[in-house]
Amino acid sequence: MSLLKKYVLEIPNFPKEGIMFRDISPVIKDHFSSLIQELDALIHPDVFKDVQYIAGIESRGFAIAAALAHKRNLGFIPIRKKGKLPGKVAQVKYDLEYGSDALEMHYGSGKIIVVDDVLATGGTLTAAAQLCEQTGFTIASILCVLNLHDLNNFSYKNVPFYSLLTY
Amino acid sequence: MSLLKKYVLEIPNFPKEGIMFRDISPVIKDHFSSLIQELDALIHPDVFKDVQYIAGIESRGFAIAAALAHKRNLGFIPIRKKGKLPGKVAQVKYDLEYGSDALEMHYGSGKIIVVDDVLATGGTLTAAAQLCEQTGFTIASILCVLNLHDLNNFSYKNVPFYSLLTY
Repeated sequence: MSLLKKYVLEIPNFPKEGIMFRDISPVIKDHFSSLIQELDALIHPDVFKDVQYIAGIESRGFAIAAALAHKRNLGFIPIRKKGKLPGKVAQVKYDLEYGSDALEMHYGSGKIIVVDDVLATGGTLTAAAQLCEQTGFTIASILCVLNLHDLNNFSYKNVPFYSLLTY
Repeated sequence: MSLLKKYVLEIPNFPKEGIMFRDISPVIKDHFSSLIQELDALIHPDVFKDVQYIAGIESRGFAIAAALAHKRNLGFIPIRKKGKLPGKVAQVKYDLEYGSDALEMHYGSGKIIVVDDVLATGGTLTAAAQLCEQTGFTIASILCVLNLHDLNNFSYKNVPFYSLLTY
C-alpha cells in the first residue's frame, strides 16, 4: 500500500449528512509528483503499448489524467458532465451515489486509458468506459487514485483496472 | 505566435446563440506535450523562483495546471465552483460572460501560479487571483492558454500575466 494514504483527509458529513468523504487534496497539493509517479508505476508497462490518450473524468479526474498524460507524452481527452462539450458528442447516463447524471465525450479513435480520482459505486467509471467504446476508442486500462468500492472488486469486461489507495 | 493556434476549432453559437466558441480540445488531445512545453517556456524563469504550487480553475484549467505542475515538480491546487470543496474554504463571487458564479479554495500559504484555459472577460481569473490572496497565497503569475480579452490587456495588480494564443 502506498505511503500516500496517510495524507488522505477524512471529512465527515460531506457532501451529505452521514457520508464520510475521503479528500485527496493534501496528496495532490503536497505530494503530486509522487502520486503521479506511483500511479504510473502501478500500470503494467505492456498496458501502455500503443496508448495515445489519457482520458480524465470531470473535474478532479482532469488533474490526475493530464499529469499522467504529460508524464507519458500522450494526449489528454476530457470526459465531461452533460452540456459542457461543444460540437458532436456521445452521451452515457449513469447513477451516482447521490443522484444521477450523464457524461459526454467527443468521438475519436485509438487506445486510451481512463482515469478518475475516486471510485465509489463504480457507476461513473463504468459509464466513462462505455462512453470511450461508444465514441470509437479502445480502452487499454482503467485507473483511479482512491478506491472505496465494496470489496474493491470493480471490473469492466477484461480491461486491466488499477487503484492506488483502497479502503 | 504559437503554431498551435491553427488547431483551435471555431464553433459558432456555443454555449449560446451568437457566441463564437473557440475550442482548444484538439490542442490538448493531439498536441498536449507541445502545449505544456510552450506554456512553460512563456513564463520568465525568475517567476518560478520559490513557487510551490500551480492552481487550476475548474474544470479545464485543472488539466493545464496539473500538467504544468507535473512538469515543474510542483503541487497542484484546485480552485473550484462553489460547494464542491469539503472543509473550510474562502469564496469570491464574480460575473461570468453568461451569468454569475462563485469560486472557492482552501486556505494555505506559499507562492502560486494561477492557470485557466480561456480568458474572456477576465472575471474568472480576477476572482481566482483575489481568492489566492484571500486564502493566504502569494501570486507569482497568472497564465492562460487562450486570450479572448478585448485588446488583450488583462491585468491584475502588478502580477506577471501570460497567454499563449490571443484573438
